[in-house]
Amino acid sequence: MKAIILVSHSEKISEGLKEMLEEMIDSTAVRIISAGGTGDGRLGTNAITIYEHLNACCECEEIYIFADIGSSILSSETAIEMLDLEEDRQKVTLFDAPLIEGAFIGAVQASIGACTEDILEEISLNK
Amino acid sequence: MKAIILVSHSEKISEGLKEMLEEMIDSTAVRIISAGGTGDGRLGTNAITIYEHLNACCECEEIYIFADIGSSILSSETAIEMLDLEEDRQKVTLFDAPLIEGAFIGAVQASIGACTEDILEEISLNK
Repeated sequence: MKAIILVSHSEKISEGLKEMLEEMIDSTAVRIISAGGTGDGRLGTNAITIYEHLNACCECEEIYIFADIGSSILSSETAIEMLDLEEDRQKVTLFDAPLIEGAFIGAVQASIGACTEDILEEISLNK
Repeated sequence: MKAIILVSHSEKISEGLKEMLEEMIDSTAVRIISAGGTGDGRLGTNAITIYEHLNACCECEEIYIFADIGSSILSSETAIEMLDLEEDRQKVTLFDAPLIEGAFIGAVQASIGACTEDILEEISLNK
């Protein structure tokens, strides 16, 4: 099982994207997690929320994060650093890709069993 | 006045992005329009809805469309073709850019008075 965490400044965006991906892929193979907004309804990001989602899916073999602009990336990096175990941090890939288009490729590829390197290559080909 | 039309498969995504952009820029200079979903609550896009939004902002000097994947782009192209007047079609630019990241650059640049060519260049630099 792989997990994809969606980090946006807007909870509506990450929720909408989760729904979209779950309709498009086999979501029994990939767990899609919405981690947008500050956690109290405002626009922004929250490293603690992202960390809690990361921590809750440490049993997954790989965890992929797709984030939108600015502080989404910084908060995701902070959340990864907060994980206690190096082996958990090693499972996490924060993709340098646009949120919607990157997560779409990541979810489709992960759902058909592609490895992280193949997904990185597929995303790079679509830039 | 310029207009930016956001086309996503998900109404939640285009609504969330509209809120995000309106918080980040001076929205008296740029009108942000959400045109996500099929119009009846399902995931997908609707060329008629996009056309109606285009038609409603033909008094704007420029109209920019940012779209997510697949049929978002096709529906946007169809909507542009549906405009009666060639001078209205000429006002519309459909950007080859990721929805959130592209619309963010487009909205910021348009709000400070950048022209279409400068926005195209700025988006190309950020790919």
